[in-house]
Amino acid sequence: MTFLLSYVSLTQKRETLMTIQRLDPEHRMSEAVIYNQTVYYTSVPENLDADAFAQTENALAVIDRSLARVGSDKSKVLDATIFLTDLADFAAMNQAWDAWVSPGNAPVRCTVLAGLVDPRYKVEIKIIAAL
Amino acid sequence: MTFLLSYVSLTQKRETLMTIQRLDPEHRMSEAVIYNQTVYYTSVPENLDADAFAQTENALAVIDRSLARVGSDKSKVLDATIFLTDLADFAAMNQAWDAWVSPGNAPVRCTVLAGLVDPRYKVEIKIIAAL
Amino acid sequence: MTFLLSYVSLTQKRETLMTIQRLDPEHRMSEAVIYNQTVYYTSVPENLDADAFAQTENALAVIDRSLARVGSDKSKVLDATIFLTDLADFAAMNQAWDAWVSPGNAPVRCTVLAGLVDPRYKVEIKIIAAL
Repeated sequence: MTFLLSYVSLTQKRETLMTIQRLDPEHRMSEAVIYNQTVYYTSVPENLDADAFAQTENALAVIDRSLARVGSDKSKVLDATIFLTDLADFAAMNQAWDAWVSPGNAPVRCTVLAGLVDPRYKVEIKIIAAL
Repeated sequence: MTFLLSYVSLTQKRETLMTIQRLDPEHRMSEAVIYNQTVYYTSVPENLDADAFAQTENALAVIDRSLARVGSDKSKVLDATIFLTDLADFAAMNQAWDAWVSPGNAPVRCTVLAGLVDPRYKVEIKIIAAL
Repeated sequence: MTFLLSYVSLTQKRETLMTIQRLDPEHRMSEAVIYNQTVYYTSVPENLDADAFAQTENALAVIDRSLARVGSDKSKVLDATIFLTDLADFAAMNQAWDAWVSPGNAPVRCTVLAGLVDPRYKVEIKIIAAL
């Protein structure tokens, strides 16, 4: 009987895993989406008039806050794509990143230079994390 | 016996999930790839001489068509990265996007400005969707 | 008894799948990250003074080497995002790509023009692969 319950539990767990969960779904986009124990998320800074160091620090703090809401945290980030508008900000971005990253748990990271949709954004960080 | 069949079925289902399926695999790239009940797909517009609104509308219709072929649909899009060549097209792209998105099921979305490989492309949309 | 062992094995397998494994985790980033039988990886060329063909060839060889270390290979690449600094290099990049790709197993591919963080980089390739 215990065994049967365990089996049912495993099956149910699988079904829960494969459900799509959306955090703060607005019409245009959701804040975060979870599927198959994987979290998709993109962070933009809220301090639009700050420099690249402060904007990166802020965007990373926003990641912390959003991951906490879904039961994950920065030690579980798998992959990060950093879009930076100006190569001159690379060192400042790295300084904020290095201070933030969970020691021993750094994700794969790819940084490219691209324009962003608010001209005041200096950085945008897209991540995939484990739940 | 029923129980044993269910167990076998679960195991087989897992194996099927972990098989890689490729839609229209050409030499250089596949149209879509499915793995672990997740669909990877990138859409470019087919109406190359159209404006950004019409190109976005078209690229999104192409997403619908491809997702339908693999048994998914726009309500299951988890994550979208929109590459736009010109910030001046942001509003037009959003207009087409907002008309398309499945209400209550918007994905995470990240829009960046980047050049595209056909100078006529104004937009390219990369998605990850649930099956 | 056999059945019970199989059940335990399935449960354990699931737990192993959901563990995050990091290849060469340095403070800033890991070389590759594996989770849920999916590999996240970004490749940059090592031959910084070479042309786009040779840099692409090299970045792809680096992908082969890293995937081999985690027990995967190029026939299992699901999705590739190619960041290219100059559209004039598109043909050269494609030439190296076409010679490399596993016939019949091409991933979804998205190529965009973006700046890279070392001015000598002509290409950077981000992939998601199956284990």
